Amino acid sequence: MTKKDVIVLKDLLGTNKRIAAEIRRELRSRGILCVNLLSSPGSGKTALLEGLADRLKGRFRMAVIEGDIETERDAERIRARGVPAWQITTGGACHLEAKMVGRVLPGVPPDVDFLFIENVGNLVCPAGYDLGESVRCVLLSSPEGDDKPQKYPQAFLSADVLVLTKSDLIPLVPFDPDKAAGEALAINPRLKVFRVSALRGEGMDELAGFFADALAKERAGRA
Amino acid sequence: MTKKDVIVLKDLLGTNKRIAAEIRRELRSRGILCVNLLSSPGSGKTALLEGLADRLKGRFRMAVIEGDIETERDAERIRARGVPAWQITTGGACHLEAKMVGRVLPGVPPDVDFLFIENVGNLVCPAGYDLGESVRCVLLSSPEGDDKPQKYPQAFLSADVLVLTKSDLIPLVPFDPDKAAGEALAINPRLKVFRVSALRGEGMDELAGFFADALAKERAGRA
Repeated sequence: MTKKDVIVLKDLLGTNKRIAAEIRRELRSRGILCVNLLSSPGSGKTALLEGLADRLKGRFRMAVIEGDIETERDAERIRARGVPAWQITTGGACHLEAKMVGRVLPGVPPDVDFLFIENVGNLVCPAGYDLGESVRCVLLSSPEGDDKPQKYPQAFLSADVLVLTKSDLIPLVPFDPDKAAGEALAINPRLKVFRVSALRGEGMDELAGFFADALAKERAGRA
Repeated sequence: MTKKDVIVLKDLLGTNKRIAAEIRRELRSRGILCVNLLSSPGSGKTALLEGLADRLKGRFRMAVIEGDIETERDAERIRARGVPAWQITTGGACHLEAKMVGRVLPGVPPDVDFLFIENVGNLVCPAGYDLGESVRCVLLSSPEGDDKPQKYPQAFLSADVLVLTKSDLIPLVPFDPDKAAGEALAINPRLKVFRVSALRGEGMDELAGFFADALAKERAGRA
C-alpha cells in the first residue's frame, strides 16, 4: 500500500468506528443486545440463527440483519421462522460497515430483545469493522479444519465467542475440536467456546442460554 | 466509497493488471502452466495440491506458491510431498497480488511444468486480482452448501474451472452437486466442472489429466 492508500483506509475506519459507537449507544439505550456473526462462507451462520430463533421464541423477540454480496436467500430463510429480517446486499463489498447497519436501524421494532447481524461470509475483512455490536461471535465449522485460528488470527482475536459448528461431522473429517479451541484461546484467552450442531441441535440450548444471560447482564449494566 | 477511494482502487488494480500480464508472458515463454486456486478457508485447496502432487510426480515437475495471512503450515505440507513451495504471508491482507508472486518467480526452477498458486482463503477479494495465471480454478466444498455461487458470483464468473471438493461428505450434508454446478454454470457457462474427494481420491485422476492436457495445449499454443 502507498501512503495515500493508508490515509484513505484510516479515514474509512475512523468514520466506521464513530458510526458504530453511535449504534452501540442507541441499541443499549433501547435494551437490545446486538450480536455480530463472523465466519467463512458456509460455516453455518444462517443455520445457527434458525436454531436460535426456534429456541428463543416465546421468551424473547429477535430480529436479524443479513449481509450478503448478492441474493435475498438468507433473509428469506430467517423470515420463514417468523423472525423479522433485513437483507443488506453489498453488491461486491467483502464486509458490512456500520453505516449499512445504521440505515436499517430505524425499522427495527422497539420491543426487540436481540439483533443478530450475519456478516458477509469472509473470515478476513469483516474482522476490521465494528458494527456497533455488544457481542462478536466467530464461527468455525469442523470441515474447515482445526488449523484456521492461527491462519486467520484477527477474527479470533477480535471475537468474544467462538462457536465450533457442524459438530455432527467431527467424526468424519480431520478436525480436533480441542486443538481448534486451544489455538483460538492462545490468540484470545477471553473467548467463550461452544460446540454445536445446528442441524442436530447439539449444544444449541447452551448457546441460547448464553445469549439470554448476556442480554440480562447488558440490561443490568444499563440500569 | 468516495471518489478518492475509487481512484486509489483503480490505480492499485491497474498496476496489478500490468504486473500480472508480465508474469503471464514470462511463465508462458518458460513453458510453465500457472494455476490460481481460489476458495473459502478450509475448502480443501492444500489437500487438492497434495493429491495432485502424488498424481503428477514422475511425469511432471510442479511448484507451489502458498498464500496465507499467517503461518508457514501449508508450504510445509506441500514440501513434505517433495514439491518445492514458497510461503507468502500477507500479514493481514485478504488476497494475493501479482507483485507478491513476481518476487517469488526468480527462485522457481527452470524445469518446472506447473506452478500452482494457492490464494488466501477468501471467496470474495482474491477474485479481483489477476496473478498472471493461465487457469483460474475455484473450489467449493460440499459442507459449504450449494447456494454459494449466486451469493459470491465474482469468483465463479472469473474462473475457468470449478472443483466441487469433499465429495465423500455429499451424502451427509445438505448439498446437491447438480444444483451447485447448475448455479455456477448459469453465471459462467464456460466453466469446466470436476467433482473430487482429495481424501478418498475420487475424481483426482480426471483433474490431474485435465491439467496435463491444459499444459500440452498451452505449450502447443506457444510453439
